[in-house]
Amino acid sequence: TFSRGIQTVTLIPGDGIGPEISTAVMKIFEAAKAPIQWEERNVTAIKGPGGRWMIPPEAKESMDKNKIGLKGPLKTPIAAGHPSMNLLLRKTFDLYANVRPCVSIEGYKTPYTDVDLVTIRENTEGEYSGIEHLIVDGVVQSIKLITEEASRRIAEYAFEYARNNQRASVTAVHKANIMRMSDGLFLRKCREVAENYKDVKFTEMYLDTVCLNMVQDPSQFDVLVMPNLYGDILSDLCAGLIGGLGVTPSGNIGANGVAIFESVHGTAPDIAGKDLANPTALLLSAVMMLRHIGLHGHANKIEMACFDTIREKKVLTKDLGGNSKCSEFTADICRRVQDMD
Amino acid sequence: TFSRGIQTVTLIPGDGIGPEISTAVMKIFEAAKAPIQWEERNVTAIKGPGGRWMIPPEAKESMDKNKIGLKGPLKTPIAAGHPSMNLLLRKTFDLYANVRPCVSIEGYKTPYTDVDLVTIRENTEGEYSGIEHLIVDGVVQSIKLITEEASRRIAEYAFEYARNNQRASVTAVHKANIMRMSDGLFLRKCREVAENYKDVKFTEMYLDTVCLNMVQDPSQFDVLVMPNLYGDILSDLCAGLIGGLGVTPSGNIGANGVAIFESVHGTAPDIAGKDLANPTALLLSAVMMLRHIGLHGHANKIEMACFDTIREKKVLTKDLGGNSKCSEFTADICRRVQDMD
Ligand SMILES: CC(C)[C@H](C(=O)O)[C@@H](O)C(=O)O
Ligand SMILES: CC(C)[C@H](C(=O)O)[C@@H](O)C(=O)O
Repeated sequence: TFSRGIQTVTLIPGDGIGPEISTAVMKIFEAAKAPIQWEERNVTAIKGPGGRWMIPPEAKESMDKNKIGLKGPLKTPIAAGHPSMNLLLRKTFDLYANVRPCVSIEGYKTPYTDVDLVTIRENTEGEYSGIEHLIVDGVVQSIKLITEEASRRIAEYAFEYARNNQRASVTAVHKANIMRMSDGLFLRKCREVAENYKDVKFTEMYLDTVCLNMVQDPSQFDVLVMPNLYGDILSDLCAGLIGGLGVTPSGNIGANGVAIFESVHGTAPDIAGKDLANPTALLLSAVMMLRHIGLHGHANKIEMACFDTIREKKVLTKDLGGNSKCSEFTADICRRVQDMD
Repeated sequence: TFSRGIQTVTLIPGDGIGPEISTAVMKIFEAAKAPIQWEERNVTAIKGPGGRWMIPPEAKESMDKNKIGLKGPLKTPIAAGHPSMNLLLRKTFDLYANVRPCVSIEGYKTPYTDVDLVTIRENTEGEYSGIEHLIVDGVVQSIKLITEEASRRIAEYAFEYARNNQRASVTAVHKANIMRMSDGLFLRKCREVAENYKDVKFTEMYLDTVCLNMVQDPSQFDVLVMPNLYGDILSDLCAGLIGGLGVTPSGNIGANGVAIFESVHGTAPDIAGKDLANPTALLLSAVMMLRHIGLHGHANKIEMACFDTIREKKVLTKDLGGNSKCSEFTADICRRVQDMD
């Protein structure tokens, strides 16, 4: 879907450590001669006509034109009264699939060594509908909305993903024993779609059982597909297994190639501007982006360099157990990338 | 709240391995001379007047009289069309607090050694309201119901529990950034109740963050309180950290001393009747029951004997890594209990 020329990408550096880690990624991409041109855009909530929150038109136009975005962390002051900008971006561009590969990183010690799975989260509805009511004083309801269309769409995405990435199985994660109609509908669509992918094994599992089995033996899982909130929970849990949000990439995928890749950690205001941040999550998200565009060679090179730097343990940021600066960590990856030529 | 004489307890052996592990518990209680008399009752779904599912009147009457129950696993064939009997029991006796202590067991190897926390789950509402609608074809909604009363009640339970069990902190687990009204109400009640327990530290955390931090370092958690579904998930996750549902006790607590203690594992039909089951979860649930009644001496003795047997590794059931029978494991615990006299 993408031409062989230079691809322009909308870069949303974000808040806190966002600009530093974005700079790191740009440097590494330059060293790798990735044919990417960056179009930097700011994303802060603005109030549109009718009082609806929206993202700034320059950011919207840039994304509409480029289709591909890379995004650092965005702060969401609850006091500001607007919704999370992360959610607003997913909604604005109908990025219906949140994809998070979780793979154990050699040399980065956690209690688990053999994690190799992908969570695929429905990103547009479910518990994130935003519909809530006060029924009577002291009684509140939130509405979880599940549609046939969104369920089929995410199930299809998961099976396509499995097939295209040589993954053997897809597990639908649900609580259809409790939410019989809503999770029941989600599950039914997964089953239907599974019929068209006989080459991929399909299983179903309760969310609670997945959580329990996950911490006991994550190696049994492969591709997992699930409604919005379950994905929020499970993707963070899985990130924890491999070292946390500082090393976990994420992609939000929409129709027709539209996608925003993002690091899902916070803005870390305490270390912002001090050249101490770890750019790994944003870098690996950018690697996902390269694969999405079809630039597998550049993706592999950068990913390998990053993992080599981590495995060698000589130049690591503080959160990774070292005492190097963000710029030093970045330079080490750049050097490796260049050495590969 | 309980007299010093013999306490009669409603015993619901349950399905599959339920009868075997119930027998094991009764034997160990006898060896420990616990002043408990068992009143065995069967619980299968029956259809009451008006077509509502209910538990058999003999079981209901027994519980109403004794107030205290001990329950093995119950199978819930989805095809049977009735709700989970576990849920029906919680509802029938308004058992509003589900309490699951998760403590690392010495000698039973898992990736974690220092888990010592308690999940306290709101057990009556939330995502388990059972209210669902078909809006239009292909669009379904499930209603998550949060009330001020149930939120305050569970928050109070959590803080009382912390205070009475020398626990330093209570963490409210929520997604009030997404479900602002419902989880917002839950959180507000927790904050209000916290004001009355200045001796207990109060913190709040997003569910996804808890899951991530939990697998990275569970030792940072103490008492956790949360709405129904989050508790379902988190209690299973935490059980996984210490060895699974086969070793994790659970109590469902209501008002005025009413409570049912239960093992939360399955019925294991594949090994039922073969003297291979592990009675630990039911036994430790029975130990929770003894403490609930105020029989701390008997509780400590039985618990210690059980942990000694596990630590020594000589007589273990298969799931615990040994090759002894349920009856042999039970006999080993009985012997230790008797040796303590
Ligand atoms: C920032 C927050 C609204 C978001 C979510 O809850 O989805 C985050 O946790 C995530 O997983 O991207
Ligand atoms: C059996 C099932 C309905 C139940 C639940 O979902 O609550 C179980 O998972 C539990 O945690 O007790």
